[in-house]
Amino acid sequence: MQDSTTQARQKLLYLMGLEGKQPEIPVSIRNLEQKAREILSPEAYDYVAGGAGAEDTIRANREAFHRVRIVPRMLRDLTLRNLGIELFGTKLPAPVLLAPIGIQSILHPDAELASARAAAAVGLPFILSTAASRSIEAVAETMQDAPRWFQLYWPDDPDVAASFVSRAEKAGYQAIVVTLDIGILGWRERDLQRAYFPFIRGEGLINYFSDPAFRKSLSQPPEIDPGAAISHALKIFANPSLTWENLGYLRQHTRLPILLKGILHPEDAICALEYHVDGLIVSNHGGRQVDGAIAALDALPGIVSAVQGQIPILFDSGIRSGADALKALALGATAILLGRPYAWGLAVGGEWGVTEVLRNFIADLDATLALSGCGSCIELASATLQRVFN
Amino acid sequence: MQDSTTQARQKLLYLMGLEGKQPEIPVSIRNLEQKAREILSPEAYDYVAGGAGAEDTIRANREAFHRVRIVPRMLRDLTLRNLGIELFGTKLPAPVLLAPIGIQSILHPDAELASARAAAAVGLPFILSTAASRSIEAVAETMQDAPRWFQLYWPDDPDVAASFVSRAEKAGYQAIVVTLDIGILGWRERDLQRAYFPFIRGEGLINYFSDPAFRKSLSQPPEIDPGAAISHALKIFANPSLTWENLGYLRQHTRLPILLKGILHPEDAICALEYHVDGLIVSNHGGRQVDGAIAALDALPGIVSAVQGQIPILFDSGIRSGADALKALALGATAILLGRPYAWGLAVGGEWGVTEVLRNFIADLDATLALSGCGSCIELASATLQRVFN
Amino acid sequence: MQDSTTQARQKLLYLMGLEGKQPEIPVSIRNLEQKAREILSPEAYDYVAGGAGAEDTIRANREAFHRVRIVPRMLRDLTLRNLGIELFGTKLPAPVLLAPIGIQSILHPDAELASARAAAAVGLPFILSTAASRSIEAVAETMQDAPRWFQLYWPDDPDVAASFVSRAEKAGYQAIVVTLDIGILGWRERDLQRAYFPFIRGEGLINYFSDPAFRKSLSQPPEIDPGAAISHALKIFANPSLTWENLGYLRQHTRLPILLKGILHPEDAICALEYHVDGLIVSNHGGRQVDGAIAALDALPGIVSAVQGQIPILFDSGIRSGADALKALALGATAILLGRPYAWGLAVGGEWGVTEVLRNFIADLDATLALSGCGSCIELASATLQRVFN
Amino acid sequence: MQDSTTQARQKLLYLMGLEGKQPEIPVSIRNLEQKAREILSPEAYDYVAGGAGAEDTIRANREAFHRVRIVPRMLRDLTLRNLGIELFGTKLPAPVLLAPIGIQSILHPDAELASARAAAAVGLPFILSTAASRSIEAVAETMQDAPRWFQLYWPDDPDVAASFVSRAEKAGYQAIVVTLDIGILGWRERDLQRAYFPFIRGEGLINYFSDPAFRKSLSQPPEIDPGAAISHALKIFANPSLTWENLGYLRQHTRLPILLKGILHPEDAICALEYHVDGLIVSNHGGRQVDGAIAALDALPGIVSAVQGQIPILFDSGIRSGADALKALALGATAILLGRPYAWGLAVGGEWGVTEVLRNFIADLDATLALSGCGSCIELASATLQRVFN
Repeated sequence: MQDSTTQARQKLLYLMGLEGKQPEIPVSIRNLEQKAREILSPEAYDYVAGGAGAEDTIRANREAFHRVRIVPRMLRDLTLRNLGIELFGTKLPAPVLLAPIGIQSILHPDAELASARAAAAVGLPFILSTAASRSIEAVAETMQDAPRWFQLYWPDDPDVAASFVSRAEKAGYQAIVVTLDIGILGWRERDLQRAYFPFIRGEGLINYFSDPAFRKSLSQPPEIDPGAAISHALKIFANPSLTWENLGYLRQHTRLPILLKGILHPEDAICALEYHVDGLIVSNHGGRQVDGAIAALDALPGIVSAVQGQIPILFDSGIRSGADALKALALGATAILLGRPYAWGLAVGGEWGVTEVLRNFIADLDATLALSGCGSCIELASATLQRVFN
Repeated sequence: MQDSTTQARQKLLYLMGLEGKQPEIPVSIRNLEQKAREILSPEAYDYVAGGAGAEDTIRANREAFHRVRIVPRMLRDLTLRNLGIELFGTKLPAPVLLAPIGIQSILHPDAELASARAAAAVGLPFILSTAASRSIEAVAETMQDAPRWFQLYWPDDPDVAASFVSRAEKAGYQAIVVTLDIGILGWRERDLQRAYFPFIRGEGLINYFSDPAFRKSLSQPPEIDPGAAISHALKIFANPSLTWENLGYLRQHTRLPILLKGILHPEDAICALEYHVDGLIVSNHGGRQVDGAIAALDALPGIVSAVQGQIPILFDSGIRSGADALKALALGATAILLGRPYAWGLAVGGEWGVTEVLRNFIADLDATLALSGCGSCIELASATLQRVFN
Repeated sequence: MQDSTTQARQKLLYLMGLEGKQPEIPVSIRNLEQKAREILSPEAYDYVAGGAGAEDTIRANREAFHRVRIVPRMLRDLTLRNLGIELFGTKLPAPVLLAPIGIQSILHPDAELASARAAAAVGLPFILSTAASRSIEAVAETMQDAPRWFQLYWPDDPDVAASFVSRAEKAGYQAIVVTLDIGILGWRERDLQRAYFPFIRGEGLINYFSDPAFRKSLSQPPEIDPGAAISHALKIFANPSLTWENLGYLRQHTRLPILLKGILHPEDAICALEYHVDGLIVSNHGGRQVDGAIAALDALPGIVSAVQGQIPILFDSGIRSGADALKALALGATAILLGRPYAWGLAVGGEWGVTEVLRNFIADLDATLALSGCGSCIELASATLQRVFN
Repeated sequence: MQDSTTQARQKLLYLMGLEGKQPEIPVSIRNLEQKAREILSPEAYDYVAGGAGAEDTIRANREAFHRVRIVPRMLRDLTLRNLGIELFGTKLPAPVLLAPIGIQSILHPDAELASARAAAAVGLPFILSTAASRSIEAVAETMQDAPRWFQLYWPDDPDVAASFVSRAEKAGYQAIVVTLDIGILGWRERDLQRAYFPFIRGEGLINYFSDPAFRKSLSQPPEIDPGAAISHALKIFANPSLTWENLGYLRQHTRLPILLKGILHPEDAICALEYHVDGLIVSNHGGRQVDGAIAALDALPGIVSAVQGQIPILFDSGIRSGADALKALALGATAILLGRPYAWGLAVGGEWGVTEVLRNFIADLDATLALSGCGSCIELASATLQRVFN
């Protein structure tokens, strides 16, 4: 794990060492996405890049960042700055986690293994999606003792749900992220138009097929009758009947901290406190579920205000740069989830691509934090932001 | 009639079944319009797509939706969700009607018959335009007992006006929609530039030519002297002398509910209550009449507030997605009118095209409603919206 | 002079009569400008289209119109609507004047004579620029008794100034418009870049060369030494020393109403009242003088409020459509000046082009006024506007 | 030094004299930048044009100017207008300084010598960057007694810092500008992507290599071991440990006025007053350091209000036109720094290019100031601005 105080300088020295050769993993996320688009099949690119409906929420997510401006402070000693935070008892070198992204096999043959190894190399937690193309156990094995969390698409079968979290706990995952905003699948026009649903070919279902509780509910094992297995997995995939009461069931089956992902309304944040949830992730699923939804950044202040520091609030949806992260942190988030940027890194360069994206991101955050006059993420709480109207 | 609780899922399963083949009716309205544009004559495309003046109102209609954002709620049991509403004693599977669009013969040879059959197949009311290219009776016949309304361009001849509503009532139409904002024709630069006026070739005048009162006012029947018939129809087409007092005359000639379409000012809504109108349709005619007019969505809250729930308020102008519909419903509309999107479906695929557009729209609305945490349109009244300023 | 109550209908019938042939003068101003651009030399096009600096004021002028929205009223008897106004004792068929535009010879060989005749044909006042390419007397002769005003670039020679207004009064001009915002020439980058200054070839100086007072101040008549005449005309062209006190001098030399053009600040409007000016024209010179200036429409309400109806306020800068005119009128302007649109008409079709632009503009205004629920310009005072923020 | 009252007129006469030939240095900054882009290597162009991260701050800088509008006044005698100001006892012909831009050798072989001579020719202070490609003494020699300031990148070696300011003072520089916002280098994606760091080839380090204190700290002189010299220069280049206390050290080593560049927060402005700084420069380094930072113009009013006129406040970042300068001056700045525009002039035409840019800029400012109704920069304090929201 690198000393975060030198991230920006180290990166710079490394790039200087390239002496005129251009780095193969584009530094700019826009260029990186462009390069990924050239490499990927149109279906796979659209699956990751796209969102719900006319993708108005994706646009809103970005606009919200533009409206919030940083007011930097000068002449503060920043020699000993430190990006590190502590989250659920674990020290992280930077307030950044890898957002759960499913079916990474469509991006790169090494899929989640590559992303997980890159996360481990940099010391940031990897959040494995239920819909991953590599199993809970395989990812755990490749990460050894590096920090990892498990994201749960709570299936419409309690035994499978319990089994998922037990497997994750046993495999050394340190927290459970329950994604709430997926009671049904969002209306994603790019995928609908291409009739592109990797799940129906079985992709992204390995955690189901390898699950003892899931297998028990089938009449034939998936190896014998994959069609029936796929069909059943899709049937229980989403669970629109979930309510706050169900959280107790999950708590019975794991001692890990439970975070709820997808909170956008302050009253839901207050509910979460009442149900003793351990953390929240403010997110609109990167604009992939509700077209026309509030920008995640616009939802953050109300939730921070409702929670009053009782549990950590993480932020997800729309982060593309260190400045974006800084704004979310200054508005009260403890850490942020980085999503599509690392997916593009994976598409372009596999494990190395993800590592580069993470290192660039941290170096950018390090520089932006320092230049804003903050030596640590904690100091950000007193940073000055200004809201503008264009 | 399908159970609305499964619209999104059914659509998804259907599309999955295409196994990589792309659906022929584009799912995205933008793509659908593009495809319609390729198929249609430039004149016909411009006639439908265009608006008044520099089309600033069309732009304002869309921007208004972007400024209003949905704040979804989580963990609400949505298993039994239901898009259905009841309107003037009729149950509808979704809060959606097909807006009156005239002269559909320029879009497809099956014209209004195709749209009406598609509406019937899905169970949504079709609102037939006075300026249709198929007669009141022919549309009624093809729809059998499916719900339909009649839109009235109140002609400058009381006998013809009375005859129109009588015919509609006799033919099983269930409501009369009086379009108010057409005292004179809007200044539509695309049509003026192309000198494109299908009416002067007799298109869209069949309801006049087939009308006993209209025929009585001619010296020769239209079959003998079509030029004179066209000329007279155009002469009485619009009626700039109408005032609130005239509504009584209409009431005398029909027992059907009367809705006023084109209300944008709260004081006009209050007038409508005083004159015992049965419903309002907030609309700026899709930006086709007054360039520079208030966005219909921006007009909605003031009218909802003035009417205080005494009569239903429908919303028209600018709806392109489920999220748009949800926003209008959450601001107080009982149902919405869908216009141009189904016209593009008609152009691209006739009856099948309209059916697909309607099914996609309902599936999108179903998904968006559920993901916003609402199990029914009634729950939307307590949905949270946030207004943003870019 | 046509009856304004039928402008929109007449135009429509005329266009219908073209039966599919497209009108040669484009109805849309954007298309018209495009056509003019194809016809004109790049220098001439840029001279008219361009503005000061980075043309930010031109952009602001247009954005201001977009922010103000019309809220139409319904069911008002509009049979007897009337666009006419009375201004300084003259009845005008519509609240529209032709803005003073200099050197029209660069647009069309018939220059101001064509524009003046078109204005006369439609019954709208033509405001002749001091910097016209046709003389005060020649324009008067061609217009016969049609209404015309004279715009004064107040020269830096009192005798010439007095002579100009005397000539105008003698030639039947009915008002003097003093342009205030031209103490020095704006920083127009397009013209500077092209080193395009028609004045230095003598274009636009005929009113100087034909002026007895001007000729008296030369040692040789312009016909003998044109270089010296041009040089002297440019020397006295603008007068940065003018103050409110100088208005008395002008008053001594004419009995015509005096209007000040270029007022943007409410305190200047109050000054104008104190100095007994007869009318104001709110204008930023079409964005041609101060880059970064307030949009003329944004300046209008403050000035209307300061003047309190004591003298008429006209509006200039950015008007492109009937809706724009309606907004300015509803905010308190008595009439509007139309500039670039008729210049493009002149370039494309000479007198006929200008006539068509004016007729289209009035028909558009007629339709928009009626559809907004107003039967006359006076009723506009109670029209409802709404300001939106995008 | 020219009389500023005739700047606009003189420029106009000069351009008129070109008689149809186009000036070789484009008048419009946008065109000038385009021409520079064609001439320069992509690396050099991107180095100057680029900013931090996604260059959102560059965009914000420009948008802020668009939101602030000038409300001009009319009929004020402007014959004797004067752009001049007095700053630290020196009279300047216009409130404009040349911003410190490093390594100008990448733009033109004459580098800073050309810019400095152009500044001298026009009478405006040239602010030499520490990272210049020409030495403090060489620039001083070519400027003779024309006004010049020195910009300090405060090195992480007190002796070198003291030596820099002593050399500047001895060489006739009249003020020290301490750039605060460079404790570490901004995350500039264009340069990172190109791995373009001219410093590592020794460019922009001449002031280090020629410095006695710096040379003393090396084991070998730069001529013998340039690699070690470069490496050491880069090591001490930025100093993240600086705090307000360190300002006292700088004061001990120079009698020149000290200005702090990079102030954006009012509390930092108050600190600066407490530490007896002589002037402030509100700046976000042209968007090159913190992506997502507040627009410099949006930061200006808060700082003006905090400082209450006790010391001069200069403005830097985003100025492209006379109108921009006028807005900053009217918001309380005493003078502005012009950056990229003169860099493009240098690239396109060397000394002559910079001279033309400066003359054009002053002529534009002269015209805009006069047309806004102000005869001098002092009168601007009472100018009216209006803030709009688009």
